[in-house]
Amino acid sequence: MDTSSPSRRLVAETLGTGLLLAVVVGSGIMGERLSGGNAALALLANALATGAALVVLIWVFGPISGAHFNPAVTLVAALRRDLSWRWALAYGLVQVAGAVLGVWVAHAMFGEPILQISTTLRSGGAQAVSEVVATFGLVAAILATTRLRPDSTAPAVGLYITAAYWFTASTSFANPAVTLARSLSDTFAGVAPASVPAFLLAQLVGALLAAGLFGWLLKTETRA
Amino acid sequence: MDTSSPSRRLVAETLGTGLLLAVVVGSGIMGERLSGGNAALALLANALATGAALVVLIWVFGPISGAHFNPAVTLVAALRRDLSWRWALAYGLVQVAGAVLGVWVAHAMFGEPILQISTTLRSGGAQAVSEVVATFGLVAAILATTRLRPDSTAPAVGLYITAAYWFTASTSFANPAVTLARSLSDTFAGVAPASVPAFLLAQLVGALLAAGLFGWLLKTETRA
Amino acid sequence: MDTSSPSRRLVAETLGTGLLLAVVVGSGIMGERLSGGNAALALLANALATGAALVVLIWVFGPISGAHFNPAVTLVAALRRDLSWRWALAYGLVQVAGAVLGVWVAHAMFGEPILQISTTLRSGGAQAVSEVVATFGLVAAILATTRLRPDSTAPAVGLYITAAYWFTASTSFANPAVTLARSLSDTFAGVAPASVPAFLLAQLVGALLAAGLFGWLLKTETRA
Amino acid sequence: MDTSSPSRRLVAETLGTGLLLAVVVGSGIMGERLSGGNAALALLANALATGAALVVLIWVFGPISGAHFNPAVTLVAALRRDLSWRWALAYGLVQVAGAVLGVWVAHAMFGEPILQISTTLRSGGAQAVSEVVATFGLVAAILATTRLRPDSTAPAVGLYITAAYWFTASTSFANPAVTLARSLSDTFAGVAPASVPAFLLAQLVGALLAAGLFGWLLKTETRA
Repeated sequence: MDTSSPSRRLVAETLGTGLLLAVVVGSGIMGERLSGGNAALALLANALATGAALVVLIWVFGPISGAHFNPAVTLVAALRRDLSWRWALAYGLVQVAGAVLGVWVAHAMFGEPILQISTTLRSGGAQAVSEVVATFGLVAAILATTRLRPDSTAPAVGLYITAAYWFTASTSFANPAVTLARSLSDTFAGVAPASVPAFLLAQLVGALLAAGLFGWLLKTETRA
Repeated sequence: MDTSSPSRRLVAETLGTGLLLAVVVGSGIMGERLSGGNAALALLANALATGAALVVLIWVFGPISGAHFNPAVTLVAALRRDLSWRWALAYGLVQVAGAVLGVWVAHAMFGEPILQISTTLRSGGAQAVSEVVATFGLVAAILATTRLRPDSTAPAVGLYITAAYWFTASTSFANPAVTLARSLSDTFAGVAPASVPAFLLAQLVGALLAAGLFGWLLKTETRA
Repeated sequence: MDTSSPSRRLVAETLGTGLLLAVVVGSGIMGERLSGGNAALALLANALATGAALVVLIWVFGPISGAHFNPAVTLVAALRRDLSWRWALAYGLVQVAGAVLGVWVAHAMFGEPILQISTTLRSGGAQAVSEVVATFGLVAAILATTRLRPDSTAPAVGLYITAAYWFTASTSFANPAVTLARSLSDTFAGVAPASVPAFLLAQLVGALLAAGLFGWLLKTETRA
Repeated sequence: MDTSSPSRRLVAETLGTGLLLAVVVGSGIMGERLSGGNAALALLANALATGAALVVLIWVFGPISGAHFNPAVTLVAALRRDLSWRWALAYGLVQVAGAVLGVWVAHAMFGEPILQISTTLRSGGAQAVSEVVATFGLVAAILATTRLRPDSTAPAVGLYITAAYWFTASTSFANPAVTLARSLSDTFAGVAPASVPAFLLAQLVGALLAAGLFGWLLKTETRA
């Protein structure tokens, strides 16, 4: 990662987050259009496409930018001093910008109006608990595999998200940039702006819990 | 594994078993809610989510606690003297405790009443044969890969369980802690308490058969 | 493989083929029961379970017996002098025996009558072409990966069969022992005895074509 | 790759592209026949079969011909001087020939008339944007993994295409030989000849964009 120039790192982080959102929103639209109203089929397509793409995106951009694509992950990296706060801020900004561009690319690919605002409310305590658990698990998977089995981080993230779309009531956003950008799509994957603040807060809580607990759990481990 | 302190090992085993149950029960609820009554779709989601999550959980917690998450696996390890009986007892207790907590987390994520008792009877000879075969296969996969291809244990367990949800009539519990905890959820993944004892007995038989047969089969093998 | 005693090799080949058939037939029954008449869902479950289980079975039994589970694969190994004809005959016999036992175990797990004869005709030129292509592809995948990427053989076989269930009109039996045994199950995965001879002939043709062509294609390759 | 004789390389490229098309078209026919009109199920089968087969085909033929199976990939290799223009032309010709043969094999396997012309129009700006994005992502995945993680190229391509079937409105052809050949099948995977030129142009644009951008992004990276 350190051998990449700053501009390459930021372009990688923008492009990777953008492609991630194009997959999340695009496969949601396709799933909904083809599934004839069966939400299980739409979510199955959405989950498999997102998980598969995440593995590829982390393989492609990991060596360049670290492939965070997620301000919660970047925040934890900064707290652990794996990344300076200056870099963390830059990462967060381009992640959000890339995510929004990715949503718009998805809309263009499916002939949808580019600019939309979601009307899908996802609120209440169950959604908040879901996002805490979802983000806790994601950050835990990243911290543990990065430390103990670095070659497994990419498949771990892809497999985790595929599962988390199903085992959390929120379908596991687990990512503030993804959450903000999905508020700009009134399609299968959207989330109404009114539901966004609670999602962001829950994601922050989940990420910090994982960082604290796994900081302790992994303290004495060495690479397998 | 041995480099981890006792408290880290027990926390890892608790947390891993808990997350496993959150996935099993949570994805079952989501699958049932979204599938419009099509049980094949619900089980497909349940199987893919459980298998994917198992791979990640074993990668994350394997280097800390060995990632048994299963008293049948722990029993076999103790019989093979890979683990002391004292540790085995502690593992079994925290596995059950973690599993119950995981079920409750799933209920919280989906806005379900936390405390439930399953009313899903799964009884009869076919169910018992299924659990013998399911547990035999799981323990066989773990013993053989741990000995011959240790890097394949995590994907082997995930792939095996994904398949076993489908090829056994019981949907393959194959785990006493999972069985006990699922009796506390009256949702898709539940099992009525009345059906639990036969499940536990069948799982014990399957685990011991695998331990005996693979103890002999693997006797002269060396790592590939 | 050579370090295993003869009895271990034959038990491994019997048990592995048996478990394979338990998965093929069992997941077919489960898929058909749960899918509410939607054959695509049943085949999807059948294909995913079979592919996933094959990877695990090859990992488990490969170091002991080579994990052929398939007389067509054993025949090609004998033709290439990787296995003596005496061993090949023994493998073929226990593969068929194990396969039949596996079908019966599947019936026991699902409370079906143990002894059945399939009534599902799968005949005609399209089925024969399908089995030639299916077996050609399977043997090609095994020969090429065994030679060039031995660690990829297990996932290659699993992925290939998952795909082949869908891209061939016969759902890709590609295995004489599997074909014979599936004639003893009047469930989703069955094949009527009247259709068996043409399947076996087509599988033989496909296997020999692959052995010939890949013998030439791989002649000058060395391991990657 | 260089150790293979020219005839082996061309046979590998023909056969691999042919098998790829047999999978794409065959699994599309099977999906449509079994899914009872639910296009999501048909596309799910189509996507899983194609992605799984691609991994195997790249493992099998990669060491012999490089396993391009795609004139857009071959063009980028020639532009990057990884392949002479003379070889590139030969690859392109046999890829198209193999692809057409593969479509015909699929028709034979399913008892369809061999010679068909698709009537499925896939036109308009959304389709063009989709093919630009689809091909951009495919070439990016290939260039980055070939450079940084060569063992991941095969799974990366398979996972990418599985996702891309869902996240692009065109279901991601991303390959001129595939596009031409699919115009000869009036089945699920077909594309009307009138839609082909715009697809080819969009694929060219996507491939060149990826080659340019990743030429720069990967300039200073070394293998992980």
